[in-house]
Amino acid sequence: MTSSAGRTLHLNAFLMSTGHHEASWRLPESDPFANTDVAHYQRLAQIAERGHLDSIFFADSPVLWNDIGRRPSGAIEPTVLLTAIAAATSRIGLIATASTTFNDPYNLARRFASVDLVSGGRAGWNVVTTAGPDAARNFGLDDQPAHHTRYERAAEFLDVAQKLWDSWDDDAATGDKASGRWGDNDRVRAIDHVGTHFRVRGPLNLPRSPQGHPLIVQAGSSEDGKAFASRYAEAVFTAHQTLEDARTFYADLKARTGALGRDPEGVKILPGIVPVIGATEAEALRLEAELDELIRPEYAVAQLARTLRLRPQDLPLDRELPADLPAEDEIEGAKSRYTLIVELARRERLTVRQLIGRLGGGRGHRTFAGTPEQVADALDEWFVGGAADGFNIMPAVLPSGLEAFVDRVVPILVRRGLFRAEYTGSTLREHYGLPRPANRYAYDEQAQGVTA
Amino acid sequence: MTSSAGRTLHLNAFLMSTGHHEASWRLPESDPFANTDVAHYQRLAQIAERGHLDSIFFADSPVLWNDIGRRPSGAIEPTVLLTAIAAATSRIGLIATASTTFNDPYNLARRFASVDLVSGGRAGWNVVTTAGPDAARNFGLDDQPAHHTRYERAAEFLDVAQKLWDSWDDDAATGDKASGRWGDNDRVRAIDHVGTHFRVRGPLNLPRSPQGHPLIVQAGSSEDGKAFASRYAEAVFTAHQTLEDARTFYADLKARTGALGRDPEGVKILPGIVPVIGATEAEALRLEAELDELIRPEYAVAQLARTLRLRPQDLPLDRELPADLPAEDEIEGAKSRYTLIVELARRERLTVRQLIGRLGGGRGHRTFAGTPEQVADALDEWFVGGAADGFNIMPAVLPSGLEAFVDRVVPILVRRGLFRAEYTGSTLREHYGLPRPANRYAYDEQAQGVTA
Repeated sequence: MTSSAGRTLHLNAFLMSTGHHEASWRLPESDPFANTDVAHYQRLAQIAERGHLDSIFFADSPVLWNDIGRRPSGAIEPTVLLTAIAAATSRIGLIATASTTFNDPYNLARRFASVDLVSGGRAGWNVVTTAGPDAARNFGLDDQPAHHTRYERAAEFLDVAQKLWDSWDDDAATGDKASGRWGDNDRVRAIDHVGTHFRVRGPLNLPRSPQGHPLIVQAGSSEDGKAFASRYAEAVFTAHQTLEDARTFYADLKARTGALGRDPEGVKILPGIVPVIGATEAEALRLEAELDELIRPEYAVAQLARTLRLRPQDLPLDRELPADLPAEDEIEGAKSRYTLIVELARRERLTVRQLIGRLGGGRGHRTFAGTPEQVADALDEWFVGGAADGFNIMPAVLPSGLEAFVDRVVPILVRRGLFRAEYTGSTLREHYGLPRPANRYAYDEQAQGVTA
Repeated sequence: MTSSAGRTLHLNAFLMSTGHHEASWRLPESDPFANTDVAHYQRLAQIAERGHLDSIFFADSPVLWNDIGRRPSGAIEPTVLLTAIAAATSRIGLIATASTTFNDPYNLARRFASVDLVSGGRAGWNVVTTAGPDAARNFGLDDQPAHHTRYERAAEFLDVAQKLWDSWDDDAATGDKASGRWGDNDRVRAIDHVGTHFRVRGPLNLPRSPQGHPLIVQAGSSEDGKAFASRYAEAVFTAHQTLEDARTFYADLKARTGALGRDPEGVKILPGIVPVIGATEAEALRLEAELDELIRPEYAVAQLARTLRLRPQDLPLDRELPADLPAEDEIEGAKSRYTLIVELARRERLTVRQLIGRLGGGRGHRTFAGTPEQVADALDEWFVGGAADGFNIMPAVLPSGLEAFVDRVVPILVRRGLFRAEYTGSTLREHYGLPRPANRYAYDEQAQGVTA
């Protein structure tokens, strides 16, 4: 697949406290409490908006990750955080992560519709199923539900949410003061969903939101994850270390999407990249090395051991990974990330110390240190090479890495005709070039693919 | 109980679309879509803040009430709405309603802590158990859980939430860059809650919030409701038609609170009042009559019939209520509201038409039409008369009724020394004169009633 005339990049800024590098909070310029500072995130969103990026995004899980010794811990609940950011911005899309395993569809569908409404049509939902026993133990379970069960529930959750978002016709309410009839009851209906995981009557207690449905984003790359993405996702965040892997994933997901009767253009694939930007390549490499030196190896080894289901003492710093590791299908949760890490270590014959450095930057995502031109080239190569519709930008240090990307890389992309110079739309869907979904229930929409 | 020197009122503005009067949306100046307009609510909050009110408040239920023909329907999810309002205000307290029956404690505790953090310590949670089968049917149930079961779950829910809010010591995180140790793991702990309704491991994935715990508000007046309030509530919204009823409730709840070893001053009791304010009494009465004439009786009768568990045809407009109505203990949910309505109709021998007019204004709350001086007198009488620590102000029309209250009644209360002329605190707890709770787990807090 090659670049067609006028095809342009989509860019998402993945925001995380002081940056994606494990040790970024230890830099002199970093605020170690930025992770719970709403003003910090409002400023980051404004920087991304200045560069006309499509969206910002927050990861999330309903559990306290790791120990708090290691790095800034705790996060403002993402729909609350997005709402606060919506008030400080006007155009940029706002994507929050929420779990289908540990929420109820009625409440969550309403919350995303509320954010969509409050932001004027800028909400997106990164759908996750939340791996790991620790989150499950905050919700009355001893362990996570099985991988396949989580995805089965996720699919039904999405069905319920979409029905609820369609439970009001767009024109259900007329607000007719003269007659005293505010709306038309025939244009709001119960959804009467009865399934394996949920029974939900509806309708939603909120009119249809500006985008109809918030944008659906997904990031799982396991078999179940790809099946889910091809059915529901409109943007996919993914992690690849090599062009070849990214191209394979891209072609596979587009083919799966087409096979389900969806337009493959209706799902935008955005590999992650951790750009470390310097005025010269040497400066970029120096910044990267500085950051890696700030990693406390005992914390990083503990984290790596957990991911690989080993004990920390199985991972001496100056040796390669042990030869006998479990196969992906023995792993519950974050399957594809597991494989990616093991393959990276094997392919480049990295010691544990070297592997930690690579992961400290991007946790499995591609790290790229270079000049603005080199970073632009790296994006261009994957975009034109059939590996990406755009990128999930994961600055190693925030705000400085985002500023460098917006002020020094984006202008190059604009000059090359690869990225917008101004916003042309006002909703998140418009930024991604995706249509507003027709209402599945509306009985008077003309020729828009209405299903019933 | 009489007014002690320096004792002053607490005032909450209960906000609802175009006002608490059923027909307020039909007035020429009303925006019929105000119910989902975040800018409308931001303006209302700014008006309340201009008057130095303690707080604003939103009711809520996870269900679409009534039919959409009758009046503006649908509501922005309240924690999202409060966050948007927090961005447009700086001092006023922000109270949202959320259900303990249809939420998980981990998610909800985190969301309120997030709002508290984002607003700088201004969050309050009105705890409800959500009566009625319609909401239950959005969450996999055929009918609501029994009244007592709902309150039992609510109590355990609050226990879990408070443990989660205390799961971090206030000083758990030090952000020490030099050592690379961000926080002290000994100062963050699992709560390991195991109860009848919940098993929650914790800790919360958010540091302790500015207020420690968001302010806990409650509004149920049934026996279970009062038992719950006396144990957990710090502010109580209540509905009474007569001074005598209000005084009885006040004395009872203060006594119950004291009997549990809590300081009775630690719970503020705020009866609701729907003030209809005119430059003269005649103008106020005219405005009230104008509003009542805009009520569509067939909608109001249907609503009344539902509350009384009757059919609409059992309620002819010009007759009094039928003689044989069920007793309160046969009613599931909104028990005390049921009794209040029946007693109001019986006491004043109201026809259904007259009752509808009274309820159209306040849905059971006290309606009072008069001049600013008369409204101030009405508040003063109940406050000094041992019936109230303050009031839940429910303007019949918004924004005009709130503007009239803030600009014309509040100055009278200030002049009489009954209300603050400026904010003296910055958190919701400070406005209500309530302490920041000690952390139940902290091992180094001095002499503050630490329990373990």
